[in-house]
Amino acid sequence: MESNNVVLLDFWPSSFGMRLRIALALKGIKYEAKEENLSDKSPLLLEMNPVHKKIPILIHNSKAICESLNILEYIDEVWHDKCPLLPSDPYERSQARFWADYIDKKIYSTGRRVWSGKGEDQEEAKKEFIEILKTLEGELGNKTYFGGDNLGFVDVALVPFTSWFYSYETCANFSIEAECPKLVVWAKTCMESESVSKSLPHPHKIYGFVLELKHKLGLA
Amino acid sequence: MESNNVVLLDFWPSSFGMRLRIALALKGIKYEAKEENLSDKSPLLLEMNPVHKKIPILIHNSKAICESLNILEYIDEVWHDKCPLLPSDPYERSQARFWADYIDKKIYSTGRRVWSGKGEDQEEAKKEFIEILKTLEGELGNKTYFGGDNLGFVDVALVPFTSWFYSYETCANFSIEAECPKLVVWAKTCMESESVSKSLPHPHKIYGFVLELKHKLGLA
Repeated sequence: MESNNVVLLDFWPSSFGMRLRIALALKGIKYEAKEENLSDKSPLLLEMNPVHKKIPILIHNSKAICESLNILEYIDEVWHDKCPLLPSDPYERSQARFWADYIDKKIYSTGRRVWSGKGEDQEEAKKEFIEILKTLEGELGNKTYFGGDNLGFVDVALVPFTSWFYSYETCANFSIEAECPKLVVWAKTCMESESVSKSLPHPHKIYGFVLELKHKLGLA
Repeated sequence: MESNNVVLLDFWPSSFGMRLRIALALKGIKYEAKEENLSDKSPLLLEMNPVHKKIPILIHNSKAICESLNILEYIDEVWHDKCPLLPSDPYERSQARFWADYIDKKIYSTGRRVWSGKGEDQEEAKKEFIEILKTLEGELGNKTYFGGDNLGFVDVALVPFTSWFYSYETCANFSIEAECPKLVVWAKTCMESESVSKSLPHPHKIYGFVLELKHKLGLA
């Protein structure tokens, strides 16, 4: 399978985009990154994802694949020889998909309420968010990675959100390390991989983006 | 792979449960169906899905798999020889997963607002619901099934909701056939398969359930 003609429509603070930056780096796939302006989406974005009109989008030999976990599976299937992300056993695969789906259903929406909320709403969101992280920490257990001894599907799905941890903590005044120390150790271990560390923006840069966004939304 | 020791925790009006009844029937897998009472969930349900506490759950040789699309992929991977649901080409697979995910994100929540809503809210939901069905009809195009010439992943994901069509139509006073005639033809073609028709409750039975539910929720 040729790895040429790979384009990623992306937006730098997007955790969903980061997932694909990590996967493409792990697999050693060369690609052209196109940064989108989400307040003025490109004709290419609208053409390639007319249903959701969202990034990230992977364009492989002129064909578009949308939705980040779906793209992650696609990348893993097409470039399966290097750094397999999903395990080969069907039951293990189902567990990895379950947890990646859990992250998709919970982290982004609750995290958004953590950084954008106020007063009681924010306190409520913070409690829920900590519960979600503790559930994930429970699943991690004493493993090095969610994938076991190697970085896998769930790790790639979750680790981008750790670049937002500083923003969650600063906006809602709490410490994720105090609540979930094992998860923070896991995040640091993930960052030892260049494929991860080079794909994630600095947490302070994300925080700058969050402040700007709050200002735009009339929240600050 | 032995097909014994398969248990499905289910609830008869659940479209998500129906997906698995269809898949298990298509693949010819014998299983024990356990009907759950969702207002008094069994200890087995809570033990097998402690995270979401939801049906359907597939228990295969004592191991639990949760979330219906995830279970569908598991079934397709473990029993891959008969009636494959996902195509073998990675791009085609990604498209099938994309549309199944679209159905998951849109149909249930919008459909619920259609049967349970009132006044302007219901009108708004009805418009959105028709748009969603038209988008799906566009994807179907002139194919017999979403899967092409054979019933596939997207067909199994969507067809259970057609047993709710009569309820949507009756509660919100509109005709899906008038709006999406091709989709209704597709649904009828799917029902020619016994694996589908025997897995779906009669639409009038679903409507009885909806009326009961509206009464319970103080909506009727």
